[in-house]
Amino acid sequence: MVETRRRQIEDVASSLFREHGYAGTSVRDIARGLAIQGASLYAHVASKEDVLWAIVRRAADRFESAADEAQQETFGRPVGERLEALVRGHVGVLTDDVGQASVFVREWRSLSPEHRARIGARRDAYENRWRRLIAEGSEAGVFVPADPALAAAYLLTALNGIVTWYRPGGPLSPRAISAEYVNLSHRALAPGRIDD
Amino acid sequence: MVETRRRQIEDVASSLFREHGYAGTSVRDIARGLAIQGASLYAHVASKEDVLWAIVRRAADRFESAADEAQQETFGRPVGERLEALVRGHVGVLTDDVGQASVFVREWRSLSPEHRARIGARRDAYENRWRRLIAEGSEAGVFVPADPALAAAYLLTALNGIVTWYRPGGPLSPRAISAEYVNLSHRALAPGRIDD
Repeated sequence: MVETRRRQIEDVASSLFREHGYAGTSVRDIARGLAIQGASLYAHVASKEDVLWAIVRRAADRFESAADEAQQETFGRPVGERLEALVRGHVGVLTDDVGQASVFVREWRSLSPEHRARIGARRDAYENRWRRLIAEGSEAGVFVPADPALAAAYLLTALNGIVTWYRPGGPLSPRAISAEYVNLSHRALAPGRIDD
Repeated sequence: MVETRRRQIEDVASSLFREHGYAGTSVRDIARGLAIQGASLYAHVASKEDVLWAIVRRAADRFESAADEAQQETFGRPVGERLEALVRGHVGVLTDDVGQASVFVREWRSLSPEHRARIGARRDAYENRWRRLIAEGSEAGVFVPADPALAAAYLLTALNGIVTWYRPGGPLSPRAISAEYVNLSHRALAPGRIDD
């Protein structure tokens, strides 16, 4: 029950943060979105930053779980397949709850310094998985000899751009977006890849 | 003289907006960065939004000029070369003045509705150049059969990500970044491209 209320708060806050930015949204706005008094909201959350932190943490959990799953599913498979699974998982997290993902991508710098440092470390670890896979593919000659850090930044930023324009129920299904982005990302690294 | 002062204001404001966000920066902060009084600043600018608008407009001019130049330089050349010139020009604008470019990429939504509409139209026109080139390459069979809108969004977002991490004088030269990003972008669209 309490958990449900927290989720409602986070969902409303995610939409508002996405639309107006974290700085442009007040606790009052969040309360209004839930049709409750600001004072009642404080029974559930300590501060606006507390809500942001919960949203960002939950999104980070989802990105990490998706990467874990992708790695498990493609364990021992060729590096190209493993990259595709990683891309598919990342895009799935973005489109499954684009409000939450958008706040993660665009507003994590608005966290308190302590929270920012903690999420920064998780972001680095996540990005390192991509770098390692790209380095492995480059060394094996399956991918082009790319700078793993630059290539990982390139791919992840390209994917994260989805939060700026994706709307559920729009003309492109999550599956269509994912397929196209998997292909673009794989090809960016693999010369002569034949499309499926 | 007046123009020089305006540029100083815009440069200081760009750095502050990049570091603390538009919402997190006051006119007072900009004045302090210039070591002048807030009241003196108002002799040069009408409002904080006025400064943002000047920065965004100037950045838009630069992106458009770079694309014009790229198109002139590669007129009549194969579509892959034309794409590479477009990418190179875009990355050049990003790294030449990353403070200004960062404000353009991240803060244009903070403009007044009227200015946002005007810059939105210019952004759309700019992105349309990319879409048309991608469509041309796809139709000619030089590029993979990609969705031009999705592929243009993918490439432009990937490139714009440079503003989040690039620092002049860092370990990677603008030329090295450009070369890598040109290759990643071209390969994303062209199967079997041999690297140079």
